[in-house]
Amino acid sequence: MQRWKLTIEYDGTPFLGWQRQHKGLTIQKTLEEAIEKFSHEKDILVQGSGRTDAGVHAVGQVAHVDMAKDFTEKEMRDATNHHTGKLPIVVLKAEKVSDAFHARYDAKQRYYRYRITYDRISPPMLDEMRAWHVRFDLDVDAMREGAKHLIGHHDFSSFRDAECQANSPMKTLDKIEIHEYIDPLRPGKQLFVDVEAKSFLHHQVRNIVGSLKRVGDGRWQPAMIRQVLEARDRCAADMNAPAHGLYFVKVDY
Amino acid sequence: MQRWKLTIEYDGTPFLGWQRQHKGLTIQKTLEEAIEKFSHEKDILVQGSGRTDAGVHAVGQVAHVDMAKDFTEKEMRDATNHHTGKLPIVVLKAEKVSDAFHARYDAKQRYYRYRITYDRISPPMLDEMRAWHVRFDLDVDAMREGAKHLIGHHDFSSFRDAECQANSPMKTLDKIEIHEYIDPLRPGKQLFVDVEAKSFLHHQVRNIVGSLKRVGDGRWQPAMIRQVLEARDRCAADMNAPAHGLYFVKVDY
Repeated sequence: MQRWKLTIEYDGTPFLGWQRQHKGLTIQKTLEEAIEKFSHEKDILVQGSGRTDAGVHAVGQVAHVDMAKDFTEKEMRDATNHHTGKLPIVVLKAEKVSDAFHARYDAKQRYYRYRITYDRISPPMLDEMRAWHVRFDLDVDAMREGAKHLIGHHDFSSFRDAECQANSPMKTLDKIEIHEYIDPLRPGKQLFVDVEAKSFLHHQVRNIVGSLKRVGDGRWQPAMIRQVLEARDRCAADMNAPAHGLYFVKVDY
Repeated sequence: MQRWKLTIEYDGTPFLGWQRQHKGLTIQKTLEEAIEKFSHEKDILVQGSGRTDAGVHAVGQVAHVDMAKDFTEKEMRDATNHHTGKLPIVVLKAEKVSDAFHARYDAKQRYYRYRITYDRISPPMLDEMRAWHVRFDLDVDAMREGAKHLIGHHDFSSFRDAECQANSPMKTLDKIEIHEYIDPLRPGKQLFVDVEAKSFLHHQVRNIVGSLKRVGDGRWQPAMIRQVLEARDRCAADMNAPAHGLYFVKVDY
């Protein structure tokens, strides 16, 4: 058997998320079926570095898969891409790796970016399902001030989904940065929230962004983020930013 | 009658272009019908600052329209947007202007941006129909050197479509700049070709970009751009970059 590392890009819009489900279109299932089709191998298992929710995009998701037959890296990439057909998933890179490599357990650092397009009344026609549309202006400096409270090792229970399966709510957020970005192709304003950690709780990034947006629109003072964090209660934040603004950017091994 | 200036954004993908045609979906027709629906006025004529081809996008197209009834600027914008329904067109801004204003004849300067995503083998899943996908790397400095030959007042016959209806092939290209742009959300590389002129010939921007790409991929030396320009023959360039990479950015009045 040869273990492969796949680097994957997808538009999350038509999918129910990463994980194979009994019914419905998922990213994992689409990749497994594409690989089974060209290789004629059975029970292919594509293991991702992390699950993404329905609607969440990826430009650098990583997965591993074991194959009995021998292929070149080019064949592995192009044949998978051919067999995903019209579905918006591609393998960017297929690399042969050692059997010891595990996409999930070996991940050292994960990077997400959240996109907000704001200060424009009319919905964005060229960024539909690609960014969270906020009609009014946001106080980005206040958001940055609020975000500082989240850096470091904390109990993130307040920013955790009820269905989160992690054993512990303790996580270390290594970086959270907010970049404003002017783009002539995007009327209004844009911002990116870039976060980086070894691992995240379910919905952690989207709950953080939802809370920071309340700071940006003036309903919360920046210090409220610390209070929410210290509450250790998922009802304290409870504002999940939409999935379609979130991008899984990359994984370090 | 009240004359209105509309600033418009659209995803060009589903449209046959700006101009109303006997059959088929166009941007002009979509706007006219939306305005007719909410205002109950007849024979509404929306006059654009310039036509865009099928598939070309806009983030700052400008048009004018005359209305008998009185509306607020907010009503005019939001009602039009409501009645374009699911089609990817929005009015970003609706402003009352004097009867003397003409979207086409009063335009002082027009700005286009062309987007290329390059140096990535797999097609872009999050930029489908939003950028020209070039699989290999491009020599951007060579493209910049080639582009310099186009600045100024020239006979642009070589970069003109056979169906172009302009009286003269003489145009003044005031600016052409190529920006490289690194974006974590876009694996591979990206570049923008920004051009600026009072007016353009039909397909002029796309023909220029198509020729510059031949310089970028090494098939042409930069000086070839001058030779093509001097040939004053549309067969000399004859490489139209795809419509879906082109964005009509703004108009100055």
